[in-house]
Parts: sequence; C-alpha cells; structure tokens
Amino acid sequence: AKRKGQKYDQIIDAAVKVIAQNGYHHSQVSKIAKEAGVADGTIYLYFKNKEDILVSLFEEKMGKFIQKIEEELAGESSIEAKLLILITMHLMQLQKDHSLAIVTQLELRQSNIELRNRINEVLKGYLKLIDTIILLGIEKGVFKEDLDVRITRQMIFGTIDEVVTDWVMKEHKYDLVQLCEPVHTMLLNAMRRS
Amino acid sequence: AKRKGQKYDQIIDAAVKVIAQNGYHHSQVSKIAKEAGVADGTIYLYFKNKEDILVSLFEEKMGKFIQKIEEELAGESSIEAKLLILITMHLMQLQKDHSLAIVTQLELRQSNIELRNRINEVLKGYLKLIDTIILLGIEKGVFKEDLDVRITRQMIFGTIDEVVTDWVMKEHKYDLVQLCEPVHTMLLNAMRRS
Ligand SMILES: CCCCCCCCCCCCCCCCCC(=O)SCCNC(=O)CCNC(=O)[C@H](O)C(C)(C)COP(=O)(O)OP(=O)(O)OC[C@H]1O[C@@H](n2cnc3c(N)ncnc32)[C@H](O)[C@@H]1OP(=O)(O)O
Ligand SMILES: CCCCCCCCCCCCCCCCCC(=O)SCCNC(=O)CCNC(=O)[C@H](O)C(C)(C)COP(=O)(O)OP(=O)(O)OC[C@H]1O[C@@H](n2cnc3c(N)ncnc32)[C@H](O)[C@@H]1OP(=O)(O)O
Repeated sequence: AKRKGQKYDQIIDAAVKVIAQNGYHHSQVSKIAKEAGVADGTIYLYFKNKEDILVSLFEEKMGKFIQKIEEELAGESSIEAKLLILITMHLMQLQKDHSLAIVTQLELRQSNIELRNRINEVLKGYLKLIDTIILLGIEKGVFKEDLDVRITRQMIFGTIDEVVTDWVMKEHKYDLVQLCEPVHTMLLNAMRRS
Repeated sequence: AKRKGQKYDQIIDAAVKVIAQNGYHHSQVSKIAKEAGVADGTIYLYFKNKEDILVSLFEEKMGKFIQKIEEELAGESSIEAKLLILITMHLMQLQKDHSLAIVTQLELRQSNIELRNRINEVLKGYLKLIDTIILLGIEKGVFKEDLDVRITRQMIFGTIDEVVTDWVMKEHKYDLVQLCEPVHTMLLNAMRRS
C-alpha cells in the first residue's frame, strides 16, 4: 500500500475527526472516505482495512511528534529542562487538537488484544524516548542511581496520561498546559537525588 | 431489580469471567447466564441489560474493595504506612484475580461516553479515598503543603494503574506485588516535605 502523498494525509486527518466524533466502532470506512472527500476504493489503495487506518494514524502522528520532541530535546542540555519539554509538548499537542486527544485517550484503548498489541508497539517508541531521559538523568547524577527505569517510565507516562484523560472526560473545559509546571515539579521530586 | 443474594453474586462472578475471556462486546447476556448456571430470564430479575451488568460488577467489587481498604487504613496511623496499604492492596487484589485485572485494565475502559461516565462515577469513590490520604498527609505536615490534591491523586492513581496495565499486557508473567515498595518510595518522594 502507498504510504505517502496528499491523499494519504487527507485520509488520516479525516479518520481522526470521524473516529473522535463517532467512536472507532461506528466509524465505517465509507464515513472516513466521505469526510476525506475521496472514493471508498481510494482508501484501500492506502489501507488494508479500518484497523490499519487506526494503527497507521497513530504511527503517523506519533512519528512526527517524536521527531519534533527529539529536535527540541537536542537544543537543551539540562535534564530538568528536557523533562519539562516532554511534558509540555505532550500536553500542548493534545490541547491544541481535541479530536486527537479523544482518539489517544479513549479510542486507542482497544481491548482486542491483537489490535492493542499493534497500538502498543507504536507507543513503545515514545516510552523509549522517556527512558532515554531517565537514563541520562541517572548518568548525570541528577536522578537517584537506584531508580527502576521501568517503574519511573510508568510513573512519568502514567501521570501525564491520567492528567490528560481527566481533562478529556471534563470536556476540555480548563487549561491543560498550565498543569505542566506542577506535574514537572512532582515528577522531578520523585526522581531527584537527595 | 434485586441487588442481593447468592444468585446475584453468582451472576457477577460469571460476568467477570466471561467478559475477561471474550471481551465486553462479545459477552452476550446468554453467555453470562450459561456460565452462572441460571436461565437467561433470571439475569433480568437482577440487571436491566449488559451495560447494567458491567457497571454493577464494578460497583459491587469496588464497594467491597474500598470497605476492606478503609478497615486496613484505620488500623495504621502513619501516613507513609497508609499509602503503602493502598498500593499493596490495589496490586494484591488484581494479582490474585487475573480475570478481574483484565476487566479493570481493558474492559472497563469503554469509549462510549455515557457508559464511561457511569464507570467513572464508581471510580470516584476510590479516587476520593486517595484524596483523604493526601489531605491527611498535608495536614500532618508529612507532605508539602502546596501540593495540588488533584494532580497528586492523578499521579498516585496514574502510576499504579500504568504499572498494572503493563503487567496485564505482559500476560501477568512477573510478580506484581513486589513492585509495591519501589512505587511507594517514588510516590512518597514526590510528595514529601523536604
Ligand atoms: C493519535 C496520536 C497522537 C500522537 C501525538 C500525541 C502526543 C502525546 C502522546 C499521547 C500518548 C497516548 C497514546 C495512547 C496509547 C494507547 C495505548 C494505551 O492505552 S497507553 C495506557 C495504558 N498502557 C499500556 O497499554 C501500555 C502497556 N505496555 C505494553 O504493552 C508494553 O510495555 C510495551 C509494548 C509498550 C513495551 O513493551 P517492551 O518493549 O517489552 O518493554 P517493557 O519495558 O514493558 O518490558 C520489557 C521486558 O521486561 C519484562 N518486565 C517488565 N516489568 C517487569 C518486572 N517488574 N519484573 C520482571 N520483568 C518485567 C517484560 O515482561 C518484558 O519482557 P518480555 O515479556 O518481552 O520477555
Ligand atoms: C472490577 C472492579 C475491581 C475493584 C477492585 C480492584 C482494585 C483496584 C482498583 C482498580 C481501579 C481501576 C478501575 C478501572 C476504571 C476504569 C475507568 C478508567 O479508565 S480509569 C483510567 C482513566 N481515567 C479516567 O477515566 C478518569 C477520568 N476522570 C473522571 O472522569 C473524573 O475525574 C471523575 C468522574 C472520576 C471524578 O470527577 P469529579 O468528582 O468531578 O472530580 P475531579 O477532581 O475530576 O474534578 C472536580 C472539578 O474540578 C475541575 N477541574 C479539574 N482539574 C482542573 C484544573 N486543573 N483547573 C480547573 N478546574 C479543574 C473539574 O472540571 C471539575 O469541575 P466540574 O466539571 O464538575 O465543574
């Protein structure tokens, strides 16, 4: 299948919108085609099926997001600043696109195990990025040397993720990005060498 | 509808098993009836529909769980010990019942908004319990006085929850309860007055 081009991007963006609005299970391929302004058959030039659309949109958006974060991280040398960049970009990205936030916090949490494993393989890229920050912090002596990297990653991701889900469930009615600072402070305190 | 009795408990336990095994969407009421060893019609004496079964089983199990935790918490005066009790009981409860863990980590994460709001209303009881520990810790001067209670609760719940989901996705293959201690240490460090 093709993986590039204007139509590919158009279909991905239409899928985010349709899935956020109708839920994954009620998002027929024909609905996505209509929203994208392409023929149903066109979708199948790019995607095998609806599942493939869901996983691909996550892969696509996550790939770009990780690239952007990595660029920002490279420009900062302090470990505290790197962690703040990660938290801020995570919250900003979802605050500026409510449909994407509904997709990440509700629709990607599929319980079908094969589908979920494919989704989690994509998430792995982001979790590995979090690990590099933790490892660097330990190496530099900013974080405790006996931190369990896996549990620390689960705390960082789990905290940010829960903050975002609450905000989605409260229909995005307060400012999410303002929460960067207190989240950053608490996470640093959890990890910092005393 | 009736809310008590041996058959009620039987249906609830059968529902946990059937939903964990087949997924909520493929758990027809008739499958649950068969597993419980009751007639289909009997289920409707107790529950309006499948949705009602899902919410009720969560309500029932969560109610008992909160009661048990509250009893344990009452027997401990130190705030650090109270937090450890909460983490330990959460992890123990799910480690000892894999079906329950699949239900809490995968099947209760429904994206349909009305259903999810009913589920989250039940979860609220547990989150309020976490809040009482945070508030007591602040009052006693063990935790920082400027902690944001909501974000702190999101960190505590989000961290434990992510630890459990990882373990479920890894098919329960390592010991979950051993993670109490490092999770407890990190959370305390995040909150403790310095
Ligand atoms: C639309 C897109 C928008 C993108 C841009 C937006 C920007 C923001 C980003 C938003 C992010 C939100 C995305 C939504 C994600 C949806 C999915 C969720 O629900 S997420 C929320 C829910 N969370 C999830 O669903 C995540 C669930 N987690 C997972 O599925 C996996 O961790 C993984 C696949 C992610 C990584 O797996 P892996 O690479 O394997 O790495 P591990 O370290 O896990 O494990 C390594 C090995 O260690 C073993 N081990 C571990 N602990 C212990 C222990 N204590 N003792 C002994 N052993 C232990 C373990 O068994 C394994 O060994 P083996 O089994 O291979 O032999
Ligand atoms: C089978 C059962 C086994 C049981 C025993 C097993 C033992 C272990 C336990 C396992 C637990 C796992 C259970 C699985 C749960 C499934 C559900 C999930 O996915 S959980 C994982 C995913 N997590 C979720 O799905 C949880 C999502 N959260 C929620 O849905 C809600 O927080 C709530 C319903 C839980 C509580 O709601 P509420 O009582 O309202 O309390 P809030 O504090 O949230 O809000 C209070 C007010 O403050 C406003 N506000 C907040 N922040 C800000 C701010 N920064 N600036 C300004 N304002 C802010 C906010 O808008 C609200 O005002 P208003 O809107 O009323 O005017």
